[in-house]
Amino acid sequence: MESDIIFREATEQDLNKIVEMLANDALGSKRERYELPLPESYKDAFKAISSDPNNELVVACDEEKVIGVLQITFTPYITHQGGWRATVEGVRTLSSERSKGIGTKLIKWAIQRAKERNCHLVQLTTDKERPDALRFYERIGFKSHSRGAKV
Amino acid sequence: MESDIIFREATEQDLNKIVEMLANDALGSKRERYELPLPESYKDAFKAISSDPNNELVVACDEEKVIGVLQITFTPYITHQGGWRATVEGVRTLSSERSKGIGTKLIKWAIQRAKERNCHLVQLTTDKERPDALRFYERIGFKSHSRGAKV
Repeated sequence: MESDIIFREATEQDLNKIVEMLANDALGSKRERYELPLPESYKDAFKAISSDPNNELVVACDEEKVIGVLQITFTPYITHQGGWRATVEGVRTLSSERSKGIGTKLIKWAIQRAKERNCHLVQLTTDKERPDALRFYERIGFKSHSRGAKV
Repeated sequence: MESDIIFREATEQDLNKIVEMLANDALGSKRERYELPLPESYKDAFKAISSDPNNELVVACDEEKVIGVLQITFTPYITHQGGWRATVEGVRTLSSERSKGIGTKLIKWAIQRAKERNCHLVQLTTDKERPDALRFYERIGFKSHSRGAKV
């Protein structure tokens, strides 16, 4: 019988495992610095996220084990008649737990959470170097509508 | 002689003019509801933005006249070694003031503001229905790196 996955806000005790998951990925391995103790910048970011009512770092857990993570940000905008939006970022599943639908459950949880926060849409961007990611989100119901740019 | 453009945080007195600018646009005309008095949802969003230290609604002014607007959001993320990012949204120039470089000045102001806030990057998305917008941002130095999706 499949065990139930629990979603909860991350605590500081989860942070090592979260960074390990983020670093264990083709793009993440170039961007992150997973070493123990963790670089202070991760701890500072964790504090900033936890103290901000418009940011939530969420982990998916199978009993005690952290098997997935995402961050959801709620933003009030003037556009769209003053509508709040939810932005999802940093979605990752533990490598040994991939292809079991955990990512889908995480995203569906985020969509539900966004509704609770009265967001009129959930948005995310996927790097062009992740060709499968967009297809994954499209299967869940996302529509590709924009191009992301950065400087 | 060209007058100097001032950038400042918007006040509630600027809100009518801001919504008028947002609505005066091919996509905005479908999304916004510019009528006076303004729908309460705009005022609620304005209050949420002004009371959030990680959100700034900024206007460009030529003397007293509001001629441009953008919103900038600062977000702490665990990804990129706990790096803060700035997201720019709702960039609009008054129709009578277009093609004078005001949009460019607004974006350059935002890039500078993001540096002051220690953001490691400035990101934005442009709707696929705005083919010129991406080229505009690329001229300023943005690189298209991702696809945006929403649900």
